[in-house]
Amino acid sequence: MATRRLVEVYLDLLSQPCRAVHILLGCNKIPHTARTVALRRGENRTPEFTKLNPMQKVPVLEDNGFVLTESDAILKYLVTKYNVPEHWYPRQPERRARVDEYTAWHQTNTRPHAAKVFILEVLLPAQSGSPVDEVRLIRALSQLDDTLEKMESMFLGRQPFLCGDDITVADLLAVCELMQPVGGDRDVLQTHPQLQRWRSRVQAAVGDSFDRAHAVLYALRDRRKAKL
Amino acid sequence: MATRRLVEVYLDLLSQPCRAVHILLGCNKIPHTARTVALRRGENRTPEFTKLNPMQKVPVLEDNGFVLTESDAILKYLVTKYNVPEHWYPRQPERRARVDEYTAWHQTNTRPHAAKVFILEVLLPAQSGSPVDEVRLIRALSQLDDTLEKMESMFLGRQPFLCGDDITVADLLAVCELMQPVGGDRDVLQTHPQLQRWRSRVQAAVGDSFDRAHAVLYALRDRRKAKL
Repeated sequence: MATRRLVEVYLDLLSQPCRAVHILLGCNKIPHTARTVALRRGENRTPEFTKLNPMQKVPVLEDNGFVLTESDAILKYLVTKYNVPEHWYPRQPERRARVDEYTAWHQTNTRPHAAKVFILEVLLPAQSGSPVDEVRLIRALSQLDDTLEKMESMFLGRQPFLCGDDITVADLLAVCELMQPVGGDRDVLQTHPQLQRWRSRVQAAVGDSFDRAHAVLYALRDRRKAKL
Repeated sequence: MATRRLVEVYLDLLSQPCRAVHILLGCNKIPHTARTVALRRGENRTPEFTKLNPMQKVPVLEDNGFVLTESDAILKYLVTKYNVPEHWYPRQPERRARVDEYTAWHQTNTRPHAAKVFILEVLLPAQSGSPVDEVRLIRALSQLDDTLEKMESMFLGRQPFLCGDDITVADLLAVCELMQPVGGDRDVLQTHPQLQRWRSRVQAAVGDSFDRAHAVLYALRDRRKAKL
């Protein structure tokens, strides 16, 4: 008899979308095997990993031979395939469309703009040894601020979560992205109390899995602070 | 008795994702009202349209008061909500995940790279009156070529459509994006026979609706050729 293997995920918890997948798996107690692919050590470029995902990106999901890339697709597949409360990705067409709307918008707004702040403030200085390019950083922060305002006015509005009354995969993708600058000891929500309250609600909804997913990011922040 | 109004879509057929929505509606004969929002005349920035979509972007769908943005979400909503053959967005989790995987990948690959070729070759010269920046164009074409190779090796592989044996919304988004440089009389698939055959299959699958959606783009190409 063929035994069904646990779903496997390949993650680097310093990658924002990987943390979203990690939180969904963790707070829903989906049995899985997590394998670390350390991007900073080039483990995504090994022949073995390249065979699994020729794009050389994380996260990757493997479910009994079915290999899936792209966090957006992985999160929605996990909710559909496993025994996860429906609110994570509602079946009702209008409510589901709201999640698809945010996740599409996210790719060209929240994701690039929040990532850029981390890249300019943490990644590039660490790689080059040069100081932070303040001009580019200020510009990136201003672009991110524009995105944050749209998140507040257009998605959050008067509802507790980005796509309605309950937490969805959209909130996970968004919160993990907006947490990334914390690696450089920067809270980009400092001047956005509405989004701060939303983040607290997300944290409360997912419990311990939030800090477990972010432990590596907190450690990076603390190492950087100790050096200063 | 409240009468159910036809679904309304706000489109500019010079916008790639709008054409994808137009084709899905057309070839599935979904009764709808299409309203033109001419981006080149700033009709997306009128107070009326801004009220409908504060992001000032097309396409927008309005279905009995439910307003939805983002082509990705609109296409998936239409398939779910209307009587459309299931192959457009399969229900089986693995097959659906393949569509979600491509549509996520599309946002940061096919879409920006194909759009850039059109922007550099048609839009910027028309706006500025300056000649085409050949250095940037060659770089953009090379980046697009990298994307086209990935589409062939990673998505198309040995299957007739991007996500399997049948056409899906992923093929519509992709083909409309890759058609855009035709506005500048450039066929970016010229050196990609595998993708050319795929495009022919997409055209055959959607029939007349392909050319109806692209008529404005063909007219742009012909006007430009007549001027040379």
